[in-house]
Amino acid sequence: MKKRLMTPGPTPVPEETLLELARPVFYHRSSEFHKIMGEVLADLQTVFCTTNPVLPLTCSGTGALEAALVNTVPAAGKVICLSAGRFGERWQHICAAFGIEPLVVSVPYGQAVQPEQLKRALAEHPDAIAVCSTLSETSTGVGHDIEAFGKIVAKTGALLLVDAISGLGAMDCRTDAWNIDICCAGSQKALMMPPGLAFLSASDKAWKVVGNLPSPRSFYFDLKKARAKWEVNDTPFTPAHTLLRAMRVSLKKIVTEGMENIWARQARHAAAARAGFQAMGLAIFPSPPNNALTVVKVPADIDSGALLEKLEKHYGIKLANGQGTLKGRIFRLGHMGYIDQFDILAALSGVELVLHEMGFPLELGKSLAAAQKMLGS
Amino acid sequence: MKKRLMTPGPTPVPEETLLELARPVFYHRSSEFHKIMGEVLADLQTVFCTTNPVLPLTCSGTGALEAALVNTVPAAGKVICLSAGRFGERWQHICAAFGIEPLVVSVPYGQAVQPEQLKRALAEHPDAIAVCSTLSETSTGVGHDIEAFGKIVAKTGALLLVDAISGLGAMDCRTDAWNIDICCAGSQKALMMPPGLAFLSASDKAWKVVGNLPSPRSFYFDLKKARAKWEVNDTPFTPAHTLLRAMRVSLKKIVTEGMENIWARQARHAAAARAGFQAMGLAIFPSPPNNALTVVKVPADIDSGALLEKLEKHYGIKLANGQGTLKGRIFRLGHMGYIDQFDILAALSGVELVLHEMGFPLELGKSLAAAQKMLGS
Repeated sequence: MKKRLMTPGPTPVPEETLLELARPVFYHRSSEFHKIMGEVLADLQTVFCTTNPVLPLTCSGTGALEAALVNTVPAAGKVICLSAGRFGERWQHICAAFGIEPLVVSVPYGQAVQPEQLKRALAEHPDAIAVCSTLSETSTGVGHDIEAFGKIVAKTGALLLVDAISGLGAMDCRTDAWNIDICCAGSQKALMMPPGLAFLSASDKAWKVVGNLPSPRSFYFDLKKARAKWEVNDTPFTPAHTLLRAMRVSLKKIVTEGMENIWARQARHAAAARAGFQAMGLAIFPSPPNNALTVVKVPADIDSGALLEKLEKHYGIKLANGQGTLKGRIFRLGHMGYIDQFDILAALSGVELVLHEMGFPLELGKSLAAAQKMLGS
Repeated sequence: MKKRLMTPGPTPVPEETLLELARPVFYHRSSEFHKIMGEVLADLQTVFCTTNPVLPLTCSGTGALEAALVNTVPAAGKVICLSAGRFGERWQHICAAFGIEPLVVSVPYGQAVQPEQLKRALAEHPDAIAVCSTLSETSTGVGHDIEAFGKIVAKTGALLLVDAISGLGAMDCRTDAWNIDICCAGSQKALMMPPGLAFLSASDKAWKVVGNLPSPRSFYFDLKKARAKWEVNDTPFTPAHTLLRAMRVSLKKIVTEGMENIWARQARHAAAARAGFQAMGLAIFPSPPNNALTVVKVPADIDSGALLEKLEKHYGIKLANGQGTLKGRIFRLGHMGYIDQFDILAALSGVELVLHEMGFPLELGKSLAAAQKMLGS
C-alpha cells in the first residue's frame, strides 16, 4: 500500500533530499563542508526572513527553546509564558528546570492568547525579561498573532522568544519585520527534513541580552560560541553534517519557490482542508486555525484513535491523534512541507471513507468537491 | 578518484546503513518506531558491555558529556578532571560553564594520566563528586587505563564519568566490569553512523546520585526523563529517529561480529598501522597508543598539513591534522568502524608515496611489508 505521512511532524522528505542522505560521509572540518554551510546558512536567513544569523544546532526543537532561555534569562528572572497548548506549556517546563519564574497567561485548548492579554501581563510585570510564545501551537492547531505580539513587546525591554518549530516555512512568519527576538525552528516540519537539527535566529536586542548575561547556563547551547563559529560557516561541536548537506537540497526547493509563494500555497491548502472537513459535517477545533496543520473535532460518539487506526490500516494515511486531554477527541492533519494539494485530497477522501464505514452520515465526495473549489495553481 | 575517509571521526558508514538513511520518513510515535528502538537499545547494551540503560540523545558527543555532569554534580561541586589532550580539556570547560570546580590532573600531550595520579588526587580531594576521563583521547591517540581508574574510583563515593566517544566499539571498554558509572559515546566513530546521536549509560551508583540531585541543570538533558521514556523504548523529545532506524543496521553488523572479535581485529589493525609507519622511519606520537586511531609524528622539516593535503588531492585519502599546538606536527589516522585492513594498507601506501614525493628518504613498500605481517583473518 502506498503510504502517506501527513502528521504535523515528522513530515515527508523530498526524494532528492533522501538520496542526498545516502551519500558517503565526508569530513566536517573541510572547505567542502564550509561551502555547504555557507549556502545553508544563507538560505536559512531567507526562510526566517531575517538578516541576523540563524544558528544551526544539533538537537530536537526543544533544545533550541532551551538555548533561547538559558542564554537570555538568569535564575529567578521573570518570563511571561503565553500558553495555548502543550507546546506553550513546554516553555513553562523549561523555565521551571532552570529556576526561572514563569508568569503564565493561558487560554483553553483550541483558543489563541490575545494581544490584549499580553499587553496586560507586560504592564503587570514590567520586569519580565522575556515573553515566550508559540507561532503554530501544534497540539491544537491554533495560530498566534506574532506580528501583534511583536509590536507590543518591542516597546518594552523584554525579548520575544518564539517557538516557530512547526509553523516556520508553512505560515507567514517575518522574523525581522515582526520584531521576533529569538525564533526557533526544527528540521522535521515545513523545512522538509528528518528530525535532528534545530535552528535559532537572534536579533540585535537579543544579542545584547545574551552578551550581558554573566554566563549562559549551558556549554552545549552557548549561543556566543555558536555565533562565533557561524561567522566562519562552522559549528562549535561536530554537527549532524550529513543532515546539513541534505538540508541544502530541501532549502533550495524552498528558496526557489519563495516564501510569499509558499505561504500563499499553504493558505490555499489549509482552506481546502478546512472546507473539506466542514463539508463532512465536522468542526475545525482551533480558533483561529493556522495554515501548517488542520485540527478537526470528531463527533462525540467517535474515538479519533479508532478512526486514525482504520485510516492508516486501510488507506495508508497517517494523521496524528490529539495529545493529553485532547486524545480521542481530535485528529491532526499536517499539510506543511512536502505535501501538495492532491495529498490533501487523499486525506479528505480517506477520512470520508472511514467515517462512512463507521456509519457516520455523510454524502460521499462532498468534501472533495468543497476542497476542489479552493485548489489550483 | 576513489575517496577514503580515514579521520578519527566522522568515519565511513556501511552502504546498507546509508541506503537505510534514504528510506522515507515514518512517524516516531508508533509501534514501528518502538520496535526499532527496542532493538537499538538492546544492541547498545551489548556494545557498551552493560546491563544498565543506554540512553540515546539527539546531540553531538559533547551534549552527552554535558548531560553526564549536569545530572550528577551540583554548582560548586568538585570534579577531578584527568586531562591528556583537548577532549580531556573539554570536561574542564563544561565544568566551568556550570560553576563546577575542576581539579585538573594533566599530563603533556601524547602521554596518559597514570592510575597513581588519580589515586593521589582522590586522596587529596575525598569530597570530589566525580572523576572525568577520556577512554581514547582522540587529539593525541593516547589510551587511558579505564579499568585501573575504575578499580580506584569504585572504592570511593565518586563517580567515574568516561568520554568514550571515539573509543567505544573500537577498543576494549567494559562498562560494567570496569565500574564506569557514566559512559558516553557518539554515533559517528566506531558505531559506523553519521553524527547526530550520542549515547550514555549510567550505573546504579550513578542513578543514585542523579536521584539525589535536587534538579538537573538542564531540561533537554534531564536523564531521569530520558530513562523513564527508555523503559518504553521511547524518548522525551522528537529524536533523530531516521538516524536511529539506520543505526539499527550498523549495530546489527557490530553485534553479529561480537565485541571481543572487534577489539581483537582493531588491535591487529592498529598494530599493522603502527608497524607500517615505524617502518617508514616515523614515530608513533602517543604512549600508550590506543587501537581506535594511530597518531604519527612527522619529521621536523615536514608540515603534516602539507602532507595531508597532497594525500587527499593525489590519492583521495583523508586523514586528520593535529589540533591546537599539535597542528602541523602530527597526523591522525582513524581505523575504527567501517575500515578494514586493506584500507589501512591504502593509507600506508598513500603516506609512503607522498613522503617519497616530498623527498623524505624511505624504502618504498617497506611499510606495507611490515604491516602485512600483522594482518590476516
